Amino acid sequence: MALIVQKYGGTSMGSVERIEHVAGKVASWRDKGHQVVVVVSAMSGETDRLLKLARSIAPRGNPREYDQIISSGEQISTGLLALALEKAGVPARSYTGRQVAIRTDDAHGKARIQSIDTERLLADCKAGVVPVVAGFQGVADTGSVTTLGRGGSDTTGVALAAALGADECQIYTDVDGVYTTDPRVEPRARRLDRITFEEMLEMASLGSKILQIRSVEFAGKYKVPLRVLSTFEDGPGTLITLEDSGMEEPLISGIAFNRDEAQITMVGVPDRPGIAAAILGPVGEANIEIDMIVQNVAGDSTTDFTFTVHRNDVERAVEIVEGVARELGAAGVRTAQDIVKVSLVGVGMRSHAGIASQMFKALAAEGINIRMISTSEIKISVVIEDKYLELAVRTLHTSFRLESAPLSG
Amino acid sequence: MALIVQKYGGTSMGSVERIEHVAGKVASWRDKGHQVVVVVSAMSGETDRLLKLARSIAPRGNPREYDQIISSGEQISTGLLALALEKAGVPARSYTGRQVAIRTDDAHGKARIQSIDTERLLADCKAGVVPVVAGFQGVADTGSVTTLGRGGSDTTGVALAAALGADECQIYTDVDGVYTTDPRVEPRARRLDRITFEEMLEMASLGSKILQIRSVEFAGKYKVPLRVLSTFEDGPGTLITLEDSGMEEPLISGIAFNRDEAQITMVGVPDRPGIAAAILGPVGEANIEIDMIVQNVAGDSTTDFTFTVHRNDVERAVEIVEGVARELGAAGVRTAQDIVKVSLVGVGMRSHAGIASQMFKALAAEGINIRMISTSEIKISVVIEDKYLELAVRTLHTSFRLESAPLSG
Repeated sequence: MALIVQKYGGTSMGSVERIEHVAGKVASWRDKGHQVVVVVSAMSGETDRLLKLARSIAPRGNPREYDQIISSGEQISTGLLALALEKAGVPARSYTGRQVAIRTDDAHGKARIQSIDTERLLADCKAGVVPVVAGFQGVADTGSVTTLGRGGSDTTGVALAAALGADECQIYTDVDGVYTTDPRVEPRARRLDRITFEEMLEMASLGSKILQIRSVEFAGKYKVPLRVLSTFEDGPGTLITLEDSGMEEPLISGIAFNRDEAQITMVGVPDRPGIAAAILGPVGEANIEIDMIVQNVAGDSTTDFTFTVHRNDVERAVEIVEGVARELGAAGVRTAQDIVKVSLVGVGMRSHAGIASQMFKALAAEGINIRMISTSEIKISVVIEDKYLELAVRTLHTSFRLESAPLSG
Repeated sequence: MALIVQKYGGTSMGSVERIEHVAGKVASWRDKGHQVVVVVSAMSGETDRLLKLARSIAPRGNPREYDQIISSGEQISTGLLALALEKAGVPARSYTGRQVAIRTDDAHGKARIQSIDTERLLADCKAGVVPVVAGFQGVADTGSVTTLGRGGSDTTGVALAAALGADECQIYTDVDGVYTTDPRVEPRARRLDRITFEEMLEMASLGSKILQIRSVEFAGKYKVPLRVLSTFEDGPGTLITLEDSGMEEPLISGIAFNRDEAQITMVGVPDRPGIAAAILGPVGEANIEIDMIVQNVAGDSTTDFTFTVHRNDVERAVEIVEGVARELGAAGVRTAQDIVKVSLVGVGMRSHAGIASQMFKALAAEGINIRMISTSEIKISVVIEDKYLELAVRTLHTSFRLESAPLSG
C-alpha cells in the first residue's frame, strides 16, 4: 500500500464526462489498496474566463481581489470531483487551500507555500476518505486567499506529497510521459521511463512544456518522486527522480528545442571589462528575460556580443541596446528572428567526453551552420537557422540512438 | 453619518457595466458621509450554471459539496465589486462568509446563521474601507462552507445589519419599492413609502416576490429598518419597519394575489373529530405544502373540506386524497385549477371593523363569486375564479382608495 498524490489538470477536468473519468481513475488506484490524495485545477477555460472579467473592470487591480476571484475555479473543481467520487462509491471530501490549510506568504498572484497542515488529510486517508484539494491556492496569515501563479497546481501537488511523505506524486496531463523529443518533429521519439530532476528542468525550460518548472525544482529539493502520465491513456508514464548511481545512465535523455527566441548581436564593441553588464543591465531593468549569452573575442581590440530574448521582447530590447551601442561606440546592432535553439540534455554527458563534438559533426554532415553555442554541465544548446529545426532534431535523435531504450549496465 | 448595509442582487451584479454602476452607487452614499457595508449575490445565471454542473454529476449528491461549488458565485462577485470600487476611488476589501466570519450550523443548503464576527468589518468602516461581503454563505464549525438557501443574500444583509447595529439595511433590486398591488394589473398602483414587517410578510408570501420572507422575519425580530429600492432608478424606495403608533396607519396597505394555487375539495365527509388530520396528514407527509384550509360545516352529518396547494402538486395531492376519501367513506373529491387567491393586507384592519364586509360588498357589486374565505389578523384572502382577477384587484384598489397616499394622523 502506498500513499499517492495525484494532480489532474484543467484539460483532465474539462467537462462533466472527464471529471467522471478522473473519478474512475482515482477509484481504480484506491481499489488496488492505495491511499490517494487528489489535487485539481480549474476546469479548462474557467481561470481565463474569470481573469477576463476581472481585467475588464480593473486591468491592474488589487492582486488580492484577483486571487479572491480566480481561486474559485479550483474550488468548484474540488466539489465536482468529490461528487463524482461519491457517486462512484468512493467517500471523498473537498478542500480549498484554506480548509487544508496550505499557508503561504501574502505575495498575491505568485505566493510561496510556507507550510501545510496535514492532520485532516491524513485522518481522511486513514478513514478511507479521498481528500480532493484545490490546486494553485493557499491562505495568507491575514486570512486572504492567495494563488501560486499559473501552473501552480503542479506545485500544490508536489508540496502536498512532500508534506504528507507520499510515495509518489503523479501529474496527470494530456501526454503520456516525457519524450526524447517532440514526436511531431521526430516520429521515432520515444517515451522515457525515467529522467532525473535536473534533466527535466533543462527539458522543461527548453520548451517541452509538460510540468511547471517550479514544481520540478520543489520535487527535486524534497526528493519527491514525480510521475507524469496521461489521464486519457493507461501506461506507466515517465518517472522523474533522483539520479540512480546503481544504474548506467543513458548518455543523452532528450532533445529540446525552442522556436520563441530571437538573437541580438552588438558588433564591434570595444573589448574592455564591464561590457556584459553595460549591455545586459538596462535590458534586465526593462524586465526582459535573457536566455543565452555568448561573447566572441575577436583578434583586434573589439568583440561581438550576442544574446537571445523572447521574440515578443525583441523590439523593446533592440531599442535599449541601440542606445547602449551609441554610448559604447560599438559598430552596430544586428538581430535575427529566423532562428531556433536546439539542446541536447543528459546527465550522462557529465562523465562522457566527446558528446559536443559528436553533436557538431552530425549537424555539419547535414550542412547545418551553427550560429551560437552554449553549454552547461548536462546540456549543450546550439542556435541554428529555423528552417533546419526538423532536420537537426532528427539527425541528433538518430546520431545518439534515442529511438531505442538504453541497455542497463 | 449613518452605518448602512446595502445588498445588491444578481440582476444588479449581472454584468461588468452593472457592477461598475453599483460601485458608483456605493461611492455616492459614501461621499455623503455614510459608512457602507455591501453584501452581494452571484452574477445572475451563475448559481444556476454551477447547480446544473453539480446536478449533472450527482443530482442528489452530498450537500456539503454542493455548497463548496455554488458558494463560489458570490465569492467572485465580492472580488469584482471590490475591484470596481477601488477603480472608482473607494478603498474596498472583499470577504467570503468564512473570512468575515459568518458562522452557521452545518445544515448545508439551508444553514442558519448563528453568529457574525463584526470586528474586521467595523475596523474597515473606521478606516474608510468598504467591506464587500459574499451573501448567501457562511462557515460551519467544521470549516465547511455552508449556504443559506435561495435568496439567502437578503438574509445575510439583514443579519449583518443586525450584528453591526446598522441604521438601515437597503435591499437593491430591479423594482423601486413595494406597491399597493401589481402595477401590471392595476396601473394606478402606488409605491408605498412605508409598510410594517408583518404586512410585508403577508404581501411577500402572497405573491409579491421582492424580498426573501426569511430576511423580513429576521429584520422584524432584530428591529432592523429595511428599505427596498431600485439599483437602476433613484428614489426613496419603501421602508419596511415597525408599526409606528404615533402615526395614523392606513387601513389597507396593499392587495396581493397568487395565481399558482389549485383547490381540492373532499365533499360529503362524515363529520367527526380528526377529519382535518386524516386528510392533511398524508398530504404533508408527501412534502406537499398546503396554503388555505376551509371546512364548511353542513347541516347534516357530513361536511365539505377544502384546501389549496400549488398547481404543480395538485395531481399528487389528489391521488393521496382520493385514497383517504375511500377510507373515510366520503362522497368524492373535486378539484379546481381556474382559481386565484386575492388578499387585502393591512395592520389597520386590526383596529377597524367592517373591512371584510366592505371587501365582500365591493366584489359582489361586480358579480364576482367568492369560493373560499380565509382571514388572519392583518389580511383577508378570498379565492375567486381566475377570470375575475384583474377586475377584483382594481375594484378593491379603488374601494379602499389605495391610489392616493393616506393622510397622516
